[in-house]
Order: sequence, then C-alpha cells, then structure tokens
Amino acid sequence: MPNYGSVKPGKNSVRLKQQQQLRIYVKGVLVMEKQARQQIFEQAKVWVLEAGEQIRKRMEQPFKVETKSNPNDLVTELDKDTERFFVEKIRSHYPEHQLFGEEGFGDDIQTLDGTVWIVDPIDGTMNFVHQKRNFAISIGIYYDGIGEIGLIYDVMADVLYTAIRGEGAYKNGEPLERLEEPQELDKSILAINSFWALRNKRVGEEGIHRLVEKVRGTRSFGSAALEFAFVAEGIIDGYLTMSLMPWDIAAGIVIVEEVGGITTQANGQPVNMLEKNSILTSHRDIHQEIVNEYVELKI
Amino acid sequence: MPNYGSVKPGKNSVRLKQQQQLRIYVKGVLVMEKQARQQIFEQAKVWVLEAGEQIRKRMEQPFKVETKSNPNDLVTELDKDTERFFVEKIRSHYPEHQLFGEEGFGDDIQTLDGTVWIVDPIDGTMNFVHQKRNFAISIGIYYDGIGEIGLIYDVMADVLYTAIRGEGAYKNGEPLERLEEPQELDKSILAINSFWALRNKRVGEEGIHRLVEKVRGTRSFGSAALEFAFVAEGIIDGYLTMSLMPWDIAAGIVIVEEVGGITTQANGQPVNMLEKNSILTSHRDIHQEIVNEYVELKI
Repeated sequence: MPNYGSVKPGKNSVRLKQQQQLRIYVKGVLVMEKQARQQIFEQAKVWVLEAGEQIRKRMEQPFKVETKSNPNDLVTELDKDTERFFVEKIRSHYPEHQLFGEEGFGDDIQTLDGTVWIVDPIDGTMNFVHQKRNFAISIGIYYDGIGEIGLIYDVMADVLYTAIRGEGAYKNGEPLERLEEPQELDKSILAINSFWALRNKRVGEEGIHRLVEKVRGTRSFGSAALEFAFVAEGIIDGYLTMSLMPWDIAAGIVIVEEVGGITTQANGQPVNMLEKNSILTSHRDIHQEIVNEYVELKI
Repeated sequence: MPNYGSVKPGKNSVRLKQQQQLRIYVKGVLVMEKQARQQIFEQAKVWVLEAGEQIRKRMEQPFKVETKSNPNDLVTELDKDTERFFVEKIRSHYPEHQLFGEEGFGDDIQTLDGTVWIVDPIDGTMNFVHQKRNFAISIGIYYDGIGEIGLIYDVMADVLYTAIRGEGAYKNGEPLERLEEPQELDKSILAINSFWALRNKRVGEEGIHRLVEKVRGTRSFGSAALEFAFVAEGIIDGYLTMSLMPWDIAAGIVIVEEVGGITTQANGQPVNMLEKNSILTSHRDIHQEIVNEYVELKI
C-alpha cells in the first residue's frame, strides 16, 4: 500500500473539493485522494459493464439487410456510440474531467493536467469484425499524468481486468498474482506480431529475428489491451509492438504496473501518453535485456 | 448428406461385423457404416469430455511441494495419463481399432488400414504450462485412411468442436456455418507463427514476408488443434505452419473439411497422415493463391 500523505491545506482545497476529489501529496507527487478515486473506479466499472452489455446486445441483433449488415459498419457504429456513451456519462457526472478517446468525441487534449479518462471503446477492431470476440473496452484514468485506474473488459468473455494504483490488479474481482517468480528470456512467451519480423520502417528486423529465436515461443492475439492484460495475468511474459496510441495502452500500463511488470517504449524510454509510442510491456526480469540486446528503433 | 451405397456381401461381411462395423462402398471407396460410426462418435465424445474433466480436476489440485510442482512435469504426466486413458478405453471397447498418439502408448502404426484413432492428449503443451488454458484434446478417427470423425476439445473453455464426415461440423452441438462467403486474401486473417518469417530450413522467408504483408492481419495462438478449429469457425481464414505431426491435425482436417475448407501440405500436396507435414488449412478461396504465390518449401 502506498504511503498516502496528508492533504495540503490552502485555497486549492476548496476548488478541488468541488471537483469531487482532493489533491494529496505522496512523496511530493500530487495524486488522487483515495476515497474519491475509489468512487470514480466504482463508477467507471459500472459504466464499462453497461457499455459491454450494450455491445453484446447489438451484436446479437440480426444484421439488417442494408449497408449496416457489414460488420465493418457495425464496429464503426459501436465504436462511436460507446465512446459517446462515456463522454456523456463523464460530462454529466464529472464535468471537470476530460476524455481522450480514439473516436474523437472527447476533448482536444494538450496536457494530462487534472483527471483524464483515456478511452478505447473497442480495442481489437479487426477481431471484432472477423471473430466477433477477443476485443475489449479499455479505460485508463490518469491524474496529472499518473495512471490511477485501469479497466480492460473482454466484452464477449465477460472478463474484467482492473487495477487501482498501489492496490493491486484483479481479474473479475479476484486478485492477480504479482509477477514475482524469476523469469528468463529463453523461457518466455512473447506476444509479437509477425509483421515486426518483416523489413519495416520502425524497428530493425534483424534484432527481432534474434529475439523470436531466443524466446520459447511467440503469440499474437490482435488486441493490445488484452495483450497487456495477459502480461498482467502472467500467461504471456511480454508484449512488444511498434506503434500504439495512448488509448491502446493507458489501462494496460496501470494493470501491468500493479502486478510488478514494467512498461516503456521499446527502447526503454518512458511512454508519452499524448503521442504514439512503441511499447514493451513485460515481466521485470526480461525487460532490460529485450531493450538492450534486441530492439533497434529506426525512428 | 453423402450417398451411402449398399453393403458389399461376401465372407468379409462376417469378419467385419465382428469388428463392430460394416464396410460400405461410397463411390467405390470403402467407408465406415453410418450407424457404427455414429456409435463410435458418441463414445469418443463421452471419453473426451471425461478426459477433459480429469485434466481440469488435476490442474486445480494444489501443486505438491516436490518435483511434481513444476508445470512442465504436470503436463508430461497429464499428457501420458490422458493418452493411456484413451488406449485403455479403446482396447477394451474396440479391440480391433488402433491408436496412434503423441505419447507412444498406442500402436506402432505402419498403415492406416482399418479404424485408427489419432490422438493428441494435450495439443498446445506450451500454452498448458504458461497459460493454464488454450490447449486442447484432439482426436481424429480414420477408417482406411479417410477421416471420418474429428473432435477438438478446448478443455478450459469447455468448448467441443466436432465433425462427422458428410454431416457437418459443430461447436458445442451447434452447427458451424459453412465457409461460403467469398474470401479474398487481402481481407483475410492468417494464423502464422512469427518464426516462419525468420530464415529457417523449411520455407522461404521472402514469400512469407510477402504473405504477411498481403493479408489483413496475422495471429498466433499456440495450439494447432485450436487453430484448425478457429479456421472451421471462420474466425481466422487460414493457418499456415511448416511442421506438424499427424495427431496435431487429424481431427482438424475432418472439422475444416466439413465446413467447406481445405487442408493440404503447404505446397498443395495431399497430407500424409503417417508423417510430419507442412500444413495449410484455409477457406477454399485463398488456398491455391497462398500455395502458388507465397509458399516455397525447402524440403
């Protein structure tokens, strides 16, 4: 459990109380007050489950015999409607919070000041279209740039991964074990898409080849959010990819962090939550070795 | 429905009746008699579900604090015990049938004459060890070399894919749709492991690179049996790999065939069910193009 400090007094307290949260300093860093954060988490969970149920219902409806019958159109529609659902909920319940999402119905975010919901309404669109499963709603809630809450909801499996910073990670309410068993790279399973083993503009393929040969095995599931969740669950040991947007990773970073995993850009630099990033999220024991020995970013 | 012909009379009939099956010619090919086949299928289904339940139970037991605590040992033990379970069941119920399995407790098969059960007790061993899910029991039942019955049981998800030749494929008893929608390669999702994009001794990596770039996306799940099942389900459009044993594919071939998919070696040649094969199983529309334009086998 983190060592929460005391509330800093002063005029800010009043303004911040109106924002339904109190600013607290922990080791000199301003973070969300615990009770407010818990309330936001509970609310977010209710909304995610509700949004997931809506998606399932609309997928079950027989496709209309018109353009809408195309699953590509359905996912576009559901993507937008789900993001709008969160925008409306947040604007009415937390008017001072911001939302930063894939579909662009939220706010035009320039900084991560204050409370920001970073939302991917449907992560794994291609899986949605082709598989009608293996996609997720991903929500990270950040406070002054720090990931406080993460929720990843595997909609069709009805599995919800959650974490609150400093309070552990959970799968359907059951605590996930921390990744404390020592891990070696040649005994690891790595999620990586075959694409990064081709000549490409982002990463040296020669290092990727050596990495794929080094690890015990590779997998690829087609949803970044679920791949983060699987790292947190310990069913894969790492996930390496070269181009993800903030909403693909915002929740996953919090959840992986809470089991003792680590997420950076693929070159080991800190993630920039306002830009596209390369990503390596993994068990702590194999992270530095992958960065140092195998990844050579081109840009 | 296949056009079953009449029983060929003669002295063979008596011997074959003793074998609990009647030989029937369909279009000049000797196949299993339908009623006997249905009975064998029902029996196989009962055993697969029973074996799966045993596996789940033993996975739930707390690991003993000795060598057995290692998941590698557990899977080896379960692999062997599950194959032995099938060997014993088959020897007592169908003494004239043969069993050909990964663990080698069955028969030393030189031909596929008569009824042969081709069994992988745990397909996806690495998933078993690392993920404790995403592995399957795979059973193909062949008669004089023709795949008559296929069962693939995703043990932890409790999902059973089945097919009887000529009678369609099923997922937990619900019919799978035939792969009748036209499919194009550049709109396809292909299961392929990153490994085949590296320089390797089996397939030209340059063609694989072009293929990975051509398709809409790639996936990798780590269980050949489940990858066959996913092709049959239409959630991926093809699965390409370079080295599989008969027990990895025996069930999958029957199930994919029953939805109108096609399985061959990766160079388009027929599969040899007594040897290691490269494999392409896919939607019919993309099969020839992958074989002709992208796969260059080295051996």
